Amino acid sequence: PRRRRLTVNDYVEGVLSRNRTIIAQTITLVESNNPVHMETGQQVLKQLLPYTGNSIRVGITGVPGAGKSTLIEALGTMLCEQGKRVAVLAVDPSSTITKGSILGDKTRMETLSRHPNAFIRPSASGGTLGGVNRKSRETMLICEAAGFDVILVETVGVGQSEVTVRSMVDFFLLVMLTGGGDELQGIKKGVMELVDAIFVNKADGKNKQIALGAKAEFNRILHFLQPITEGWTPKAYTCSALTGEGIAEMWQVIQAFTGKTQRSGVFDTRRRKQTIDWMYTMVEDYLRTSFFNHPEVSSIIPVIEKAVGNGEVSATMAAKQLLKIFEDQ
Amino acid sequence: PRRRRLTVNDYVEGVLSRNRTIIAQTITLVESNNPVHMETGQQVLKQLLPYTGNSIRVGITGVPGAGKSTLIEALGTMLCEQGKRVAVLAVDPSSTITKGSILGDKTRMETLSRHPNAFIRPSASGGTLGGVNRKSRETMLICEAAGFDVILVETVGVGQSEVTVRSMVDFFLLVMLTGGGDELQGIKKGVMELVDAIFVNKADGKNKQIALGAKAEFNRILHFLQPITEGWTPKAYTCSALTGEGIAEMWQVIQAFTGKTQRSGVFDTRRRKQTIDWMYTMVEDYLRTSFFNHPEVSSIIPVIEKAVGNGEVSATMAAKQLLKIFEDQ
Repeated sequence: PRRRRLTVNDYVEGVLSRNRTIIAQTITLVESNNPVHMETGQQVLKQLLPYTGNSIRVGITGVPGAGKSTLIEALGTMLCEQGKRVAVLAVDPSSTITKGSILGDKTRMETLSRHPNAFIRPSASGGTLGGVNRKSRETMLICEAAGFDVILVETVGVGQSEVTVRSMVDFFLLVMLTGGGDELQGIKKGVMELVDAIFVNKADGKNKQIALGAKAEFNRILHFLQPITEGWTPKAYTCSALTGEGIAEMWQVIQAFTGKTQRSGVFDTRRRKQTIDWMYTMVEDYLRTSFFNHPEVSSIIPVIEKAVGNGEVSATMAAKQLLKIFEDQ
Repeated sequence: PRRRRLTVNDYVEGVLSRNRTIIAQTITLVESNNPVHMETGQQVLKQLLPYTGNSIRVGITGVPGAGKSTLIEALGTMLCEQGKRVAVLAVDPSSTITKGSILGDKTRMETLSRHPNAFIRPSASGGTLGGVNRKSRETMLICEAAGFDVILVETVGVGQSEVTVRSMVDFFLLVMLTGGGDELQGIKKGVMELVDAIFVNKADGKNKQIALGAKAEFNRILHFLQPITEGWTPKAYTCSALTGEGIAEMWQVIQAFTGKTQRSGVFDTRRRKQTIDWMYTMVEDYLRTSFFNHPEVSSIIPVIEKAVGNGEVSATMAAKQLLKIFEDQ
């Protein structure tokens, strides 16, 4: 018999009763670029909203090869064994281009993916209003409504992805490697200013001493940066996904952070601000897209850019001309 | 007899013939928020554009009290005595609020302001399309058409002003003080990543040793940051506006920078990009302002923000609702 199409209620009840198949289908629904699916997705989300917000949202970034996946697997497995329910999501803006997910690959987290308390969701690709950003945020909300206690959001330093993830999590963690000499090689400008903690990974065997040196160096740099979270001083730590050393400490740091910021009110204030900022981001993206997709605007842009770049037309004149074309639609 | 109103040609010829009174009047014209003046201003600017672009544009920032004005006076006077023509502008977003200019005050640069080769213009206040930002850029263009060889743009670290100034100059310089212990106190997040050089000011008398220490510290930090200008490594230096030590070196650094970046093409590429980016900034500002000034949008925003912040409405739903209101105008 042909499978009955799920109603808004089916989705909502499925998520709330923690039905893994329906959780996955609901995520697929909000990820869809089909306007009908999007509409249904929003109706589902509306009903789930009262059940969201009860997880700890942790963002994890670091250069490729830093060992983010093995670290997430180690942390996630430890938490699952403590009885916590853990969801792993990925924000990967590059997947729109590569036509596939390079993150959140289940096969890279074999132990964790088999644990009944874990839920791993590879990254979505782009699309309409809000794109990857919207989909990751709404997936996070669905996971919260499904009772996950900890959401781990993995990202790789592509484009603005660290800023995006920072804007949707409570705690943001940078995974670093001890490099050959220059420990900071590969860190993108400004990323260290976004983090609540740095973990130097692969601090095991003969790498341990070098890792401790890198940790000290990072602490010196962090000292000069303005902390991103009011009332919390970011510090550097060492860990090893291989030996498991430092993984329990990582969770202790996150708990100390949430305890402190929840008591001070910083935690809730940030969450409210994140949601409101996100609404305006979507509005501005939409306005910008409408402008650049306007047929006459987009066809004249190469001409205008050339004239402005050559100094034949002033930037103000050019802006006025473009806006006039846009508004005479 | 009543003074005849200047025509577009009067302004253009006055600027090109370096008539100081008309230069000042032309700046007042482009600074005006009156639509008729703005229109005339743009016509004048259009004719001046072919004569612009021949100066070196230097941005200077630093916390209040770092001695920016005395340093500008020292550098500007030295350049004027070498026969160069120097214009000093100020970008001060706070002047909109304080209803007055806190920067570029002629009385603070007495020697320089009396020099025939110098031209000092206090900062403009806000207004329509582009505001302070537009006015400063267009004032810079007028000064270039009037044959000034060096434009010094002073700013204080208010809001986004460093980013604004960085986006309109070739070389960006941070003036620092040696503080009591923590040399970095007061530096805003991310500012050190925008600069091409740091000058530790007041390196005189018993302060000299401390200044040398601060310089070494800044060099260590700069080493970890990604340089803002391709092919140029920012470094820290010491100087004293009081004794004049380091002022000649400051100019040598700027000349080494322009020589190197002009040969590599980075100089011209950045200027073109700055102008095009600036055009799009005006377009986006306009779109954003149209949205937020839309009467029904602005009246519903407090309600929507509250509902989104409380988790009663999803950010996506709220964004859609706001955009619907905006587009049904």
